[in-house]
Amino acid sequence: MPPRPNTIVAAAPDTIPFIAPERLEREAGRPFAARLGANEGNLGPSPAAIAAMEKAARDDAWKYPDPENRALREALCAHLGTAMDEIVVGPGIDGLLGLIVRIFSVAGAAIVSSRGAYPTFAYHVTGHGRRLVTAEYRDDREDLDALAALCREETARIVYVSNPDNPMGTWWDAQDVTRFFDAVPDSTLIVLDEAYGETAPEGTLPAIDTARPNLLRLRTFSKAHGLAGLRCGYALGHRALTAPFDKVRDHFGVSLLSQAGALAALGDRAYLAQTVQRIAEARERIAAIGRANGLTPLPSATNFVALDCGSEGAHAMALLDALAARGVFLRKPMVAPLDRCIRVSVGRPGELDHFEGVLAEACAAVGEGR
Amino acid sequence: MPPRPNTIVAAAPDTIPFIAPERLEREAGRPFAARLGANEGNLGPSPAAIAAMEKAARDDAWKYPDPENRALREALCAHLGTAMDEIVVGPGIDGLLGLIVRIFSVAGAAIVSSRGAYPTFAYHVTGHGRRLVTAEYRDDREDLDALAALCREETARIVYVSNPDNPMGTWWDAQDVTRFFDAVPDSTLIVLDEAYGETAPEGTLPAIDTARPNLLRLRTFSKAHGLAGLRCGYALGHRALTAPFDKVRDHFGVSLLSQAGALAALGDRAYLAQTVQRIAEARERIAAIGRANGLTPLPSATNFVALDCGSEGAHAMALLDALAARGVFLRKPMVAPLDRCIRVSVGRPGELDHFEGVLAEACAAVGEGR
Repeated sequence: MPPRPNTIVAAAPDTIPFIAPERLEREAGRPFAARLGANEGNLGPSPAAIAAMEKAARDDAWKYPDPENRALREALCAHLGTAMDEIVVGPGIDGLLGLIVRIFSVAGAAIVSSRGAYPTFAYHVTGHGRRLVTAEYRDDREDLDALAALCREETARIVYVSNPDNPMGTWWDAQDVTRFFDAVPDSTLIVLDEAYGETAPEGTLPAIDTARPNLLRLRTFSKAHGLAGLRCGYALGHRALTAPFDKVRDHFGVSLLSQAGALAALGDRAYLAQTVQRIAEARERIAAIGRANGLTPLPSATNFVALDCGSEGAHAMALLDALAARGVFLRKPMVAPLDRCIRVSVGRPGELDHFEGVLAEACAAVGEGR
Repeated sequence: MPPRPNTIVAAAPDTIPFIAPERLEREAGRPFAARLGANEGNLGPSPAAIAAMEKAARDDAWKYPDPENRALREALCAHLGTAMDEIVVGPGIDGLLGLIVRIFSVAGAAIVSSRGAYPTFAYHVTGHGRRLVTAEYRDDREDLDALAALCREETARIVYVSNPDNPMGTWWDAQDVTRFFDAVPDSTLIVLDEAYGETAPEGTLPAIDTARPNLLRLRTFSKAHGLAGLRCGYALGHRALTAPFDKVRDHFGVSLLSQAGALAALGDRAYLAQTVQRIAEARERIAAIGRANGLTPLPSATNFVALDCGSEGAHAMALLDALAARGVFLRKPMVAPLDRCIRVSVGRPGELDHFEGVLAEACAAVGEGR
């Protein structure tokens, strides 16, 4: 009998969180004119980050990266006001989520999330043989009361919440988030995904408080910093929660070029502020384009806007397909009632021009729905 | 009771596989003049790879990387004569080793390696709560007969072998390796780490045979290709062994810049051939420097040379420290009898000049040993 995966891996589904635009392009035989589906940093990174990556490519690519991610962690500490041992740098939030599930739960343990939330978290939960328990979205936001109640009922090991929310773009104020912290049992690890924190209105992110013994917050260079290609994110929280990562993480897992690019991006606050402003303007433009075509934009604190197509999921999916046929890569939520929306990322001006230019035709092609 | 790591992670040791030279430099308050301890690609990558990384930094760093690693896998297939579904690209061999342990074994299962072999494999074995069972090195090579026997005795799930060998630089011929394949039970997954395959003499690497149902071979861009900073490696083998990776791996885990750099490096065969030649010459030079100072070089098929200091481990360690105090970063095997050696990586000519310049003084400082 040849070697086979263990029962946990064998039982994991074959479905993966995302189909890449590259694959859709290969299947269609042509590139997308507007890549607006993955909430990337289409506006691009700071020139300082580009220069740092170019220099690292020339001078240092032959070296192993610093396994302690020291320079980047020092800069993050200075920026956030945390201590060195309260920060873990990892290969994007995706990689950190896998480690969190692995470290802080056991096979069969209940882990709480919202049905329809970021699928990569659910992917890691099932991939590690843990048990996903979900609450429903409510009014297009994660239902913090329901999530906290589930944690209590299920004696959950972990609860995952994103704020601002992916895939809806909605958000809770810091006050509400802090109330949620207090409602979750002390024994449940709260994983607060703040990938879109930089683009949220003031008052969205709770103050940094690494004294809380059951909270890890996740942040990334993939969104507002425009560096999704690097795979560089970080977790911050109480040192009793960050310390165990060092016992199991892939110490050399964050590339040297990624550490260099992220460090330079973090240092260019002016560019970040400018990008955040441009993202806010592009959100307004996406909303206006939607409204002009009978679609209702949801309020967004992220680098994308969910457009309510006013009907059931099949109609929104047909519109997504009609847009793909016209060169626009989008994604959409897949569970009802969120699935009535399509999700449009902030793109470069030319990409939004293309989207605007084909949306009316795509809407006409799929009709009114229902 | 706040969240705590599960019993497997809690039981894992705090020791990590490697202390980074960056850390030693911070502690010493000055950089090393010769970075010769990590078997990196000191001679640097192909100019084509540098150009590809620079272009990716400028144009594409904002995008998520292709989660299917398609372009790189296609090029690897063309190069190796394998099928697309017989290759898995991952964040370096280190990252792939972690996945292999996770996928193909269960808690408490016996996993076989050599005592003193690549420590990152052992790190992942204990980090996943598996049981490491070791054979001894014999005449400074992994003892293939003893490893195969241990697999049978322990009904091992996995056996790990590196050929050429790290940390000794020694190697087995393809014939011997193939005999080892046949001696291992069909139910044991053979993990053959060929990180140093490009620098080995002809006749070292068995022919590619992905029909063998219990063999995964690991390769990397970190060594001969000079791209340790990228974290890009791959596994090749039977599709029943490669398929399960897709169910649990971090699909976006290999950075976009890394994929671009690796692809360009793979395409520059002339540069690789030149580097392999320069590595062979540098090995000769390291051996000659060693001999001139009373140290006996072991034959090497890698990008480093183990120098036998002719005494016990404490003496070799004292020499390592004396060299560190003189600006030379080296590492050494840590278990007897391998620990009588220090290990010198192929460096740039100036780095070897520095090593040569301080070795006599360092030897004099520590005396004859024993």
